[in-house]
Amino acid sequence: MFLERLEESKSAIENCVGGILGDSVEHELVDAMRYAVAGGKRIRGFLVMESSRLHGVPVNQAVRAATAVECLHAYSLVHDDLPCMDNDDLRRGRLTVHKKWNESLAVLTGDALQALAYQILAEPETSPHPEVRAELVRTLATAAGASGMTLGQAMDIAAETASARPSREDIELLQSRKTGALLCWSAQAGPRLAGEDSTSLLNYAHALGLAYQIADDIVDAEGDPALAGKRLRKDADAGKATLVSLLGLEKAKQTGRVLVDQARDALEQYGERAEALRAVAEFANDRRR
Amino acid sequence: MFLERLEESKSAIENCVGGILGDSVEHELVDAMRYAVAGGKRIRGFLVMESSRLHGVPVNQAVRAATAVECLHAYSLVHDDLPCMDNDDLRRGRLTVHKKWNESLAVLTGDALQALAYQILAEPETSPHPEVRAELVRTLATAAGASGMTLGQAMDIAAETASARPSREDIELLQSRKTGALLCWSAQAGPRLAGEDSTSLLNYAHALGLAYQIADDIVDAEGDPALAGKRLRKDADAGKATLVSLLGLEKAKQTGRVLVDQARDALEQYGERAEALRAVAEFANDRRR
Repeated sequence: MFLERLEESKSAIENCVGGILGDSVEHELVDAMRYAVAGGKRIRGFLVMESSRLHGVPVNQAVRAATAVECLHAYSLVHDDLPCMDNDDLRRGRLTVHKKWNESLAVLTGDALQALAYQILAEPETSPHPEVRAELVRTLATAAGASGMTLGQAMDIAAETASARPSREDIELLQSRKTGALLCWSAQAGPRLAGEDSTSLLNYAHALGLAYQIADDIVDAEGDPALAGKRLRKDADAGKATLVSLLGLEKAKQTGRVLVDQARDALEQYGERAEALRAVAEFANDRRR
Repeated sequence: MFLERLEESKSAIENCVGGILGDSVEHELVDAMRYAVAGGKRIRGFLVMESSRLHGVPVNQAVRAATAVECLHAYSLVHDDLPCMDNDDLRRGRLTVHKKWNESLAVLTGDALQALAYQILAEPETSPHPEVRAELVRTLATAAGASGMTLGQAMDIAAETASARPSREDIELLQSRKTGALLCWSAQAGPRLAGEDSTSLLNYAHALGLAYQIADDIVDAEGDPALAGKRLRKDADAGKATLVSLLGLEKAKQTGRVLVDQARDALEQYGERAEALRAVAEFANDRRR
């Protein structure tokens, strides 16, 4: 059921992006935006869809918030892949935007996708309540900006050349910003759209984010590049400390297990209706790519 | 009086940026954001302040919208200066962000400044009316994104290698996107904050934007790099068509004059209270840097 719902949510998001970009001027910038948003696991969008379902948010509103966060995530990937950042040629099994087009178009594609995320949230179709739309924008911009994702990425790049070995707390702080902030926003989007309390889903997403990052590090350390569709062993090659290099592979896997249990526990109030979100946590832990 | 007001508005905006970034985590990302926003003519912020004054918007609200658009403008400059884009070493008489720090930090600095612009607009301090905040975000994201500024920049880069000589209409369309969209947003911010009609100020800003771009092209063609604080003759060196290369220097200056008159005429309903906005138009036309 989880995989079915994930597929359903993926195609709802693809349709929404297609509709929004379909109205745009014809230009390779828009082609590159479409390309960058296509594919991927769409976990963030799925968190928006499922948290919305739990809070009775209409699907046509939820899918717009899901599309917004996927545009924002796609922008961050396009910029992270640039030669001056992680310098990756492959993403989701295809050429990265700067390899398929060029660097300047990749910078602009990311820039335009970030703007599009806020535009989608601020449009009346996302919620009839303007205070909900403003709050979705405010919280997404905070999660994405200089105290969230972008700061996490800057810390991550700085860590590659840092001489001191970071502590577990340092790594977890970095990761809560780099990937955690956007996952938390996604899981909270449902209650926010409904004007309801989002604490339980925040706790869920916080644990999920750390579990997810550990799983990513484990894939990077022992995964199969062909399955992953991207270059692996990047952290080891860069001599970068991760929870895997700090705790060792076995301890990291145990920690991942504990975090998945924490994520599951946070969903107690939703009972069986939250099975799909529990499955996301298991999926994070189990995935091999 | 115009220059006094411009100075007043500049320091109000500097204070606002300082306050907002002062609360941030200490990190070179935030240092670079502060550096990128500092200085400049702040014409966009000034348009917000003056259009707000004409519509009776409280200064503490106007200054936040002005700061938002200056953050957005600063982001676009940081990205435009990157080696893969215009590859500039100097901006506002100082090293560009990627020269002072490095390319990856420059990409992230622009990214974080863009997020900050929407965050500021969406915060309740910008307006007590959530529908106003959502509308400011929606219109700024539209002006900045794939049908506005970012598209204009992509078209501009493509124009450098295009074989066909563009028409005057092509150049004006490109420029209305690249610089016009943000100027229009700025001039409309006052009536939008007041919930009033913004048509006259849109017409004003549309003419102002074209006048401004012609003036920029004239400075690029015949200005003094020491006064301008940046590299000049870029268009001629790149063999790029501008209104100056298309119309010739004298005809371009005449066209600038006509546009300034159009901008002035659009302000009729505001009478003498709009003198500062008329002066902005004259300033665009007269400036030599």
